[in-house]
Amino acid sequence: MANRAPFDDALCCVVEEVRPELVSFHFGLPEAALLARVRAAGATIVSSASTVAEARGLAERGCDAIIAQGANAGGHRATFLAEPIAAVAHQPGTLSLVPQVVDAVDVPVIATGGIADARGIAAAFALGAAAVQIGTAFLFCPEAKVPAPQRAALRAARDDATAMTNVFTGRPARGLVNRAMRELGPLSPEAPSFPLAAAGLAPLRATAEFAGSGDFSPLWSGQAAALGRELPAAELTRALAAETLALLARGLARAT
Amino acid sequence: MANRAPFDDALCCVVEEVRPELVSFHFGLPEAALLARVRAAGATIVSSASTVAEARGLAERGCDAIIAQGANAGGHRATFLAEPIAAVAHQPGTLSLVPQVVDAVDVPVIATGGIADARGIAAAFALGAAAVQIGTAFLFCPEAKVPAPQRAALRAARDDATAMTNVFTGRPARGLVNRAMRELGPLSPEAPSFPLAAAGLAPLRATAEFAGSGDFSPLWSGQAAALGRELPAAELTRALAAETLALLARGLARAT
Repeated sequence: MANRAPFDDALCCVVEEVRPELVSFHFGLPEAALLARVRAAGATIVSSASTVAEARGLAERGCDAIIAQGANAGGHRATFLAEPIAAVAHQPGTLSLVPQVVDAVDVPVIATGGIADARGIAAAFALGAAAVQIGTAFLFCPEAKVPAPQRAALRAARDDATAMTNVFTGRPARGLVNRAMRELGPLSPEAPSFPLAAAGLAPLRATAEFAGSGDFSPLWSGQAAALGRELPAAELTRALAAETLALLARGLARAT
Repeated sequence: MANRAPFDDALCCVVEEVRPELVSFHFGLPEAALLARVRAAGATIVSSASTVAEARGLAERGCDAIIAQGANAGGHRATFLAEPIAAVAHQPGTLSLVPQVVDAVDVPVIATGGIADARGIAAAFALGAAAVQIGTAFLFCPEAKVPAPQRAALRAARDDATAMTNVFTGRPARGLVNRAMRELGPLSPEAPSFPLAAAGLAPLRATAEFAGSGDFSPLWSGQAAALGRELPAAELTRALAAETLALLARGLARAT
């Protein structure tokens, strides 16, 4: 399992010092020696799978829980077993991926990808997930450090406003379609490899953002941004929990 | 709304003669005069939407229910408002599309795309769907007229075995990746326009199928084929209903 993530001795020392309860990796897992040190520091270890094969791979390496990342998700694909750009065409959507991952591994599965309200959370539970990971919906919170152009784009987002692109970082990620994606991609074999593309675009991005434009910024977003609500993070979390419990209880009404 | 489907006076006369309870269109709706005749014949009218905008368009034309087709779905995209090949990159997955369509229209929403077992059905209900439409799971039934190579491919299918392709018919559709998709596409600007590509491939397909090969056949499949069970259709339908009701009832256990 390739270690493409920049998790090295220095970062591992930070984990050993801070001793976080949970460490979540993306793009696979670090090499065995580093992973053993994270485990020895007492952390629950999770990582993301974009396919069943990746979920099995993570389970074999001892992940305590696995994030099943459906194609609906915003941001970078977790892909680590396949060529990332080729894999874009094959990544299953969240609704299809989660139950197949649940069937394939014995550890708890955390569903992610296009979940932004109680309906999505309740659906993930029905699919067999033990928990959900929500990204885009929290970008609407006032606490989120989201540049103004991205915040404006998120507010205007429709269901079909995103696409997968590698032009911003060199690896495929889902974002709201903008000028850079339209004119350079959205998927381009000419993008510098990860993460070098980001440095290449940085001057253009900075100048555009200074002028209030998101034309050259990565506007990461999943497919359910239109369901986002502008609430403080704690309030949003409590609302999602309460609304999900109410929805699950209503499930019984259908069943009886 | 373009009428790209071959629903003409002759077919409409059949509807008027048979008077089916329900008529389901794909690729939008026929022209107003034909649609009025279908309605006058007493049929409930439904059609598929691959985006919220398409769902609104169908509701405005008086559809009695709308099928929300997520990107997970096997077979042809319903796309009728956007350029079909360009739209492939933007179609939301089922889990994200369904609640957004439910919010956008006042008629019942039928979820479809990557649903193959009780977990997917219960999830669709949680998302706000009034019903589900299941395709691929029924291709495993002995009653399904599925060529032998497609049946074998479905049995071997994994979660990431499909991609969207236009090489078989000229319009994008999801199928299990095979030689034709790999060597000609999977999405090719050179494919003849719908439905002419099918005739172009027909001799090669027939010869290959005669030899037991699905290399040049459309192996339509959604993303949850791996969840398929080989049961007679009636038995599968009853099993899915019973299993879904049991799952919905268990939802209460989480909620209390």
